[in-house]
Amino acid sequence: MGSLIGSTEKLVAEVLKATPTADVAALREAKRGILDYLASAYAGRDDAGAVKLLGAIEAEGGRPIAALIGQNKRANRRQAALVNGFLGHALDYDDVHSDVRGHPSSVILPTLFALASGREISGKQFLDAYILGVEVMARLGRAIGTASYLKGWHNTSLLGAVAATFAGARLLGFTAEQTQNAVGIAVSQAGGLRVQFGTEMKPLHAGLAAQQAVQAIEWTQQAFRGTDAALDSKIGFLHVYGGKAADEAARTALTEDWGKTWRIAAPGLWFKRNPFCSAAAHGADAALELAQLHVDAAAIEKIDIVFPPGGDAALIHTRPQTGEQGRFSIEYVVALALLGQPYTLANFSSAPVSSEAGMLMEKMSRCYDADHKPDPQAIPIGRFTIVRIMLTDGSVHSREVSVPTGSPQAPLTDAELENKWRDSAPDQDKAERLLQAIRGLENAWLSGLEELL
Amino acid sequence: MGSLIGSTEKLVAEVLKATPTADVAALREAKRGILDYLASAYAGRDDAGAVKLLGAIEAEGGRPIAALIGQNKRANRRQAALVNGFLGHALDYDDVHSDVRGHPSSVILPTLFALASGREISGKQFLDAYILGVEVMARLGRAIGTASYLKGWHNTSLLGAVAATFAGARLLGFTAEQTQNAVGIAVSQAGGLRVQFGTEMKPLHAGLAAQQAVQAIEWTQQAFRGTDAALDSKIGFLHVYGGKAADEAARTALTEDWGKTWRIAAPGLWFKRNPFCSAAAHGADAALELAQLHVDAAAIEKIDIVFPPGGDAALIHTRPQTGEQGRFSIEYVVALALLGQPYTLANFSSAPVSSEAGMLMEKMSRCYDADHKPDPQAIPIGRFTIVRIMLTDGSVHSREVSVPTGSPQAPLTDAELENKWRDSAPDQDKAERLLQAIRGLENAWLSGLEELL
Repeated sequence: MGSLIGSTEKLVAEVLKATPTADVAALREAKRGILDYLASAYAGRDDAGAVKLLGAIEAEGGRPIAALIGQNKRANRRQAALVNGFLGHALDYDDVHSDVRGHPSSVILPTLFALASGREISGKQFLDAYILGVEVMARLGRAIGTASYLKGWHNTSLLGAVAATFAGARLLGFTAEQTQNAVGIAVSQAGGLRVQFGTEMKPLHAGLAAQQAVQAIEWTQQAFRGTDAALDSKIGFLHVYGGKAADEAARTALTEDWGKTWRIAAPGLWFKRNPFCSAAAHGADAALELAQLHVDAAAIEKIDIVFPPGGDAALIHTRPQTGEQGRFSIEYVVALALLGQPYTLANFSSAPVSSEAGMLMEKMSRCYDADHKPDPQAIPIGRFTIVRIMLTDGSVHSREVSVPTGSPQAPLTDAELENKWRDSAPDQDKAERLLQAIRGLENAWLSGLEELL
Repeated sequence: MGSLIGSTEKLVAEVLKATPTADVAALREAKRGILDYLASAYAGRDDAGAVKLLGAIEAEGGRPIAALIGQNKRANRRQAALVNGFLGHALDYDDVHSDVRGHPSSVILPTLFALASGREISGKQFLDAYILGVEVMARLGRAIGTASYLKGWHNTSLLGAVAATFAGARLLGFTAEQTQNAVGIAVSQAGGLRVQFGTEMKPLHAGLAAQQAVQAIEWTQQAFRGTDAALDSKIGFLHVYGGKAADEAARTALTEDWGKTWRIAAPGLWFKRNPFCSAAAHGADAALELAQLHVDAAAIEKIDIVFPPGGDAALIHTRPQTGEQGRFSIEYVVALALLGQPYTLANFSSAPVSSEAGMLMEKMSRCYDADHKPDPQAIPIGRFTIVRIMLTDGSVHSREVSVPTGSPQAPLTDAELENKWRDSAPDQDKAERLLQAIRGLENAWLSGLEELL
């Protein structure tokens, strides 16, 4: 118990006093993160799940304060956080952070947009809060380690609810005591199981976490009291989910080297080119290389896909029935590439997978190699995927990828990211106006951007 | 993974076809459970936390459909579930079930009242759903075992969200497929940490679980999709929280001997005489016996309080600063008895503990005895508490209790329970009208009772 004591208080103090927008790299990546989040949320704005959530919100009623992205509607802050979190993550097209092993922006940004709505918040306040939310989420990810994810929790929601609460408290200028209390309220709501991967609940985890953060903030505003030892206690968040390893790790992971660099920029956000789980990005790049060989599917006898042990934990579907499940299937992602099928939204919809893809997946096996040494730049650290095709003529073709396109080590350019946004935006006028609003955000009120959602 | 497959489907089938109100004992206990829940919620209706929650709900807005207990107000169903769950558990005065190691009625009843409001639901439908909710919560408790509680989760919310979802699905006549889906949505929201014991978040856990159940039901009504393998999967609810032990236990615990007796009646609900954690009830009874000796506090040198290992896990405060923390402190409960102070709500408020109680607690130590054999009727199984006072003159006085008053083995009579309600009700006219409504509930519409909340 001893080692974690004071963790909450110390982290709260750092979050409340930092101004990370002073760091050029962090400011730049924060603006890219907002753009990518909005591109992902707009791309998902007609998703079937969003229509269902809107129906539920309509039935509930509530004061129309905060914008629902791309819907031309407003809802109360809690509802907006729920829906906008879902939208950002609906297509699994939103950013990833390797320290998080999950999706920071689709939790933190909906929380901040919801809390900012109807209030005078400067763009700089918003950017600072966002960078700090990502910082906390990444540090919580390092502190809590890998065991909880492997056991079955989804870090996007589990860590996201807590990190977004820190960010929200910072945005609204909470005192240290209020922030500690809000985090206390958040830890009892955080959760989310990976068994949902491939269902509409997976993206809703981002929305639920954002809802939980808004509740933690709003209930604290009403002076509702939770524990002030959320992270410290033996029965607190870090120890319960991270176990003994977290007791040690947290001492350094939470605040060491605070402010030297910001984790939104280093190791940095990973912006996706394609709408599927980033754990399949390595295999996708390898398969796309192999696709250049133009091998006929009938000539393939067997395909091995090799990971480090646990490297495929997020990819829970080995024989997906739908494109939606295929977002979490290395087999489906590899099959599409080898069949020359593009990584479009249509190929990851709730429609059944094609029979060609189904037959090709039957030839695939996953293998694990604990001894293989990947590129030292590998992301996440130690991750690689090898796709190895054995043909009926006895020949073997193999490709290995450790640093996929879009990851921080091989990032999308500003132009590529802006084009991702332009492809998602409803019209070009809106696309350009929103680009302008983001470019000058640190010198404007947040309301100028919020009105465009 | 193999052993849990089909668990969700099998349990859903049993819940949807059973009519437990046909069992006289179950029907009787269900009516007692409703009465006790309402007594507890009314007793807590002016709690400071409730005022704060009402403020938050007012700020959110929402359609006024479901009654907020004792508030003369309505809110949307989700909000009503949240507030009424909080109210039931606010004073830790509500029922406990030993299979649950937590509080079933303060989660299940607010969920059912919220879902029933504005709909034509018969009293019998309501009673069947309630009995089945308790049944599922108790069976989940047995399946999941003790490890998750000891690690830090609070069963009231963790199991409650899932059980209340089963109950709600049954109430609204969901199909098997809809029920399975709703349970899928529920498992990703369930959580709640024991670190909150002694704060306002502890009772809110009941409200959060009820809110989560309402969300699971309402989102399913909108056809929102979650996993259909909520309980079955290796990364599903039972295995994640219960570990390997649950894989084995669940096979029998979930559906074995289904319908032979109902767990609401055997082992039965435990209705409280006093507003503190039931884990302190044994020690309280022992201390009340010792108080008959009228020993002067100054003559006490040392007090040992002996539990079986882990038997005091819920009692997280050894030196409580406030009466509210004292709800989870065996030391405070024993001190009050020995000082001749009654177990009133005032003595468990947020006010600081008295200096006399503080000084007496300094003399207390907890000990653990794994070899001691308690009464075979002990509740929970194997539980005992020994309070041993060593006086300055060298004499030692000791009392042991395994079956405390109020527990199913030493239950409150109907008259005692009705008096608990009369003590909580705002006026005697209301008290009698509600008693009548509960007595005839199985032959009436639920709306007749709901209008009295």
